[in-house]
Amino acid sequence: MKSALEQHLAWVAADWGSSNLRVWGLDQHDQVIAQASSSKGMLALTPVQYEAELLRLIADWLPANRQVDVVVCGMAGARQGWLEAAYLPVPTPLHQLGMGAVTPQLANQQLRVYLLPGLSQTRANATHFDVMRGEETQLAGLLADHPHFSGLACLPGTHSKWAQLEAGTVGSFSTYLTGELYHLLARQSVLRHSIGSDDLDDEIGRDIFLAAVRESYEAPDAFSSRLFGLRAQDLLDTKPPSDVLRHNLLAARLSGLVIGLELSSASRQYASNEPITLIGNQALCQRYTLALNTIGHPTQHLDGNTAVLAGLSLAHHALKETA
Amino acid sequence: MKSALEQHLAWVAADWGSSNLRVWGLDQHDQVIAQASSSKGMLALTPVQYEAELLRLIADWLPANRQVDVVVCGMAGARQGWLEAAYLPVPTPLHQLGMGAVTPQLANQQLRVYLLPGLSQTRANATHFDVMRGEETQLAGLLADHPHFSGLACLPGTHSKWAQLEAGTVGSFSTYLTGELYHLLARQSVLRHSIGSDDLDDEIGRDIFLAAVRESYEAPDAFSSRLFGLRAQDLLDTKPPSDVLRHNLLAARLSGLVIGLELSSASRQYASNEPITLIGNQALCQRYTLALNTIGHPTQHLDGNTAVLAGLSLAHHALKETA
Repeated sequence: MKSALEQHLAWVAADWGSSNLRVWGLDQHDQVIAQASSSKGMLALTPVQYEAELLRLIADWLPANRQVDVVVCGMAGARQGWLEAAYLPVPTPLHQLGMGAVTPQLANQQLRVYLLPGLSQTRANATHFDVMRGEETQLAGLLADHPHFSGLACLPGTHSKWAQLEAGTVGSFSTYLTGELYHLLARQSVLRHSIGSDDLDDEIGRDIFLAAVRESYEAPDAFSSRLFGLRAQDLLDTKPPSDVLRHNLLAARLSGLVIGLELSSASRQYASNEPITLIGNQALCQRYTLALNTIGHPTQHLDGNTAVLAGLSLAHHALKETA
Repeated sequence: MKSALEQHLAWVAADWGSSNLRVWGLDQHDQVIAQASSSKGMLALTPVQYEAELLRLIADWLPANRQVDVVVCGMAGARQGWLEAAYLPVPTPLHQLGMGAVTPQLANQQLRVYLLPGLSQTRANATHFDVMRGEETQLAGLLADHPHFSGLACLPGTHSKWAQLEAGTVGSFSTYLTGELYHLLARQSVLRHSIGSDDLDDEIGRDIFLAAVRESYEAPDAFSSRLFGLRAQDLLDTKPPSDVLRHNLLAARLSGLVIGLELSSASRQYASNEPITLIGNQALCQRYTLALNTIGHPTQHLDGNTAVLAGLSLAHHALKETA
């Protein structure tokens, strides 16, 4: 007897990043009816291992009598991933992502896998080199409700992405090393003994975070001397006297300095009075909302999981139409 | 029979940093007649181990019948060093460094050790928190030939220091995390596979370095997106096709970006048309000279070893006068 899952499964969506794999089973209305995840990201796999890892998570979902599409975004399509899906150069209409998909040869004939491409930017089509792989699919999710979306989107994270969209097309984008800079400085630099864990629910911590955002935003050139200043402040300033509390407040300041540096560049490069759409998890987007609001920018929020599923659905529809 | 060294040794100078100890034996004219070094810096020693380590290097130099002064700058005087010599707050007349010296109790009565203090800056006496320990003695070396030295000095390095001197007094100073940022990014970040070893004797490398200095100097806000751009350029730009050469040129660019960020802040904070005095080793000061010249600042160079010996000599003379 077929399970309800086998019966209703229409296709599979996957976000296959450097460190994680997340898969969703969807019905014919693109509603999620199953999900699974693993820590076997691109960094943990050789090309021949991808198929088995995917089947390990979804084999139980599959109907016996029909082939199922699997639409994958992220690092699985990188040169060092499963099979390279070459970057599409900007400007890129996001509803065309599926046209750059590649289909790896599979041993199992129950599946047909589409690896979506990332986006690239060179000096030929913008001012600077940049790449994204995975975030373009979240951006495509903006088109689910607004097929001709125009505006500025920010995906905060280890490598924050900012993208300017015009009628559903990415014109240009920029990546900021914000999250990685924070972690390198907090854990591996001379500051590592001075940085605790910040908490923006604490009013004092939030005020310190916001003051640091404004400082970086207004005078980004002093970024690296402000970093050493955190160490000096820890040595010289005995308020608060508790090491733990002082280090937590210095963490809030460090977070504000690195995010403020990002905003100083991005909000000027893409000057706009329209709300900036933040895509990602609630906590990080809340932090960016506080930061953007304090320098005068309104924001709106789209959940990161919602965005990636909407983007994969859009690509799946396009693939079915051209099939 | 006494050796010539025992006979002529007047005093001992020491630069005791985090990772190294360097000592010099000097005659009554402050000429170096002996030198030694060890890798037992502050990080490798507990307070009770300093005396033995010092004696291990200089015991053979010491005359039997008179006490010898040892004047020490650097991290040996830090809270976590041999004995804390509390920071002197700016403004600090550099000929008064010896007045802040502390003298640890010794088992061996042949020696009298003076640990010189560092300098501190708080919000009470400047705009930002900062500290130095060791560099103040190199700055004092500027007074050897010019007792009322005024001007801007830069000590490039892991934590580059800029100091404004007025008639031999340090009014304010700033530390930049430049060298540490370079090494964190080159070795521990997403850029680590894209950064080789740069060579500014190569004309193409030098041009790329200088262009990056000017980019950072002119638009410091885009620092963190330019960092990710190095990775993207490595992925997208096949000129030059050799990985080694391409990665060496990207290293030159990274060096220019971090130094340009420092200069963007420091050269504006301390605006001046007078030559900037660079104190340090030849290769690094040559790099900063190229960078400062390209943004329109003349420079002059004082060797770092010459500076620290001159500063320790100045402190020793002051200590003898007050003894």
